[in-house]
Amino acid sequence: MSRRRWAEIVIVGNEILSGHVLDTNSRWLSQRLIRMGVSVRRHVTVPDCENAIASEVSAALSRSPDLLITAGGLGPTDDDRTLMGVANALGRPLVRNETALSLVLQRYRQLYQEGAVDSPDMTPAREKMTILPDGAIPLPNTVGTAPGVWIVSGPTAIVCLPGVPAELKDIFINALPALLRAHLGVGYYAERHYEVICKDESVLAPIIKEVVQAHPGVYLKSRVRPFGTAFRIRLLLSCVSESPFEADESLRRTVDDLILRLEPAGILLIPACGEEE
Amino acid sequence: MSRRRWAEIVIVGNEILSGHVLDTNSRWLSQRLIRMGVSVRRHVTVPDCENAIASEVSAALSRSPDLLITAGGLGPTDDDRTLMGVANALGRPLVRNETALSLVLQRYRQLYQEGAVDSPDMTPAREKMTILPDGAIPLPNTVGTAPGVWIVSGPTAIVCLPGVPAELKDIFINALPALLRAHLGVGYYAERHYEVICKDESVLAPIIKEVVQAHPGVYLKSRVRPFGTAFRIRLLLSCVSESPFEADESLRRTVDDLILRLEPAGILLIPACGEEE
Repeated sequence: MSRRRWAEIVIVGNEILSGHVLDTNSRWLSQRLIRMGVSVRRHVTVPDCENAIASEVSAALSRSPDLLITAGGLGPTDDDRTLMGVANALGRPLVRNETALSLVLQRYRQLYQEGAVDSPDMTPAREKMTILPDGAIPLPNTVGTAPGVWIVSGPTAIVCLPGVPAELKDIFINALPALLRAHLGVGYYAERHYEVICKDESVLAPIIKEVVQAHPGVYLKSRVRPFGTAFRIRLLLSCVSESPFEADESLRRTVDDLILRLEPAGILLIPACGEEE
Repeated sequence: MSRRRWAEIVIVGNEILSGHVLDTNSRWLSQRLIRMGVSVRRHVTVPDCENAIASEVSAALSRSPDLLITAGGLGPTDDDRTLMGVANALGRPLVRNETALSLVLQRYRQLYQEGAVDSPDMTPAREKMTILPDGAIPLPNTVGTAPGVWIVSGPTAIVCLPGVPAELKDIFINALPALLRAHLGVGYYAERHYEVICKDESVLAPIIKEVVQAHPGVYLKSRVRPFGTAFRIRLLLSCVSESPFEADESLRRTVDDLILRLEPAGILLIPACGEEE
């Protein structure tokens, strides 16, 4: 049995903790990662505070995930402190990164030509975005201005992304795939969605428990709908594996078993679509 | 200056970590808490795993928040393990709670009368929801079936809520206010929203830094919009205080100062509405 790849996500932002902004980045990143065969084991949101970021990153690194993604706190304002926290956790100095400098200069030149900013020149606030932990690789941001950051520390690749969702997605989709594949290798993921006609999750619970115990490589989760609005319970089966065939095969065997055990209880398993939110 | 009340939130659920479900509970709880004068310092999501829950709850308790809220993992299925984790972290046994038993029995009797379940009787899965950490107070759930839980440990009130948003909200709104007020006292919160006409956050950054330093009791955050879509930057000012007058007064002084410092840079401050998502 091969090694399971896993990741942690650290979100930085007072505006999330105060409830002013809904964090959608954790979910988006988790959806992308699981499809690459990487399970996410932890989401955490901390304030825009260097010490909180540093201690969270240190704690994550001590668990040796394959991947640690931070989102938020890369911009030009004084409360953008993620890279200070990361540098502190790594015990590395923050240094002027020449590649980041040319990315930021080039970006402001372009924004100036588009009329989006009043000057293409460096200012202290813009320069802040070119100061990265020693050994970091900057990742181009074609939506905003702050480059993303890639740093490898022991077994863990640390990726720092901006908190603005459009910028985070841009960097993840355009700048990261090759680096991630080189660091993580290739993994596969398969999932199937079902609904069961069953009034009450407590009737289903013992059957699901049996199936989960019989198929440890497959994740099986039931999700209740409020009583009175629907009599259907959603079931998700998923599997991460080294080969696409193996992932599908594990799910097929589990579904066959589930059908066999639901039949005597008179419960019908119905295929469902994946999206429901 | 009086004590600042603060809270941490622990979300339990593999379906959040896999990206299948978007966690909206953390934000909803944070919005409610800040309006009671309670700042939230940390959101974390952990898997449906007793050890992960126990170690997260232990870590949170070691920081002595006034309030620790967990959401998820209270239901009848085998992967609902929050109370095991909490009991483990507290070093308390799980015991049959007579109040919880009568709440659950009453709820299933009602659901049976409504035709929502096939039997009003206790089953092992239903009974699971009546086993709480020793010393817990069950909180009625009028939407689902699993009671919420209130436990005081040292300076911290621990509140365990179901993960289904409608159930979480029902318990928070109907069963918690008196307990929270008795434990936390009364706090006040005020906020103001503005927009500035300014092409570039990096121009605004040094002015905001000055204002933040001059008004340490007030939280001031700028939020950038992607370039090209808008030339406005959002500003949020907020303040938690012992009296509503003091909170408003602090914000008024900060806004006056902000206007004074923005004027020479030719930047206009425009009142904005609070909701933008």
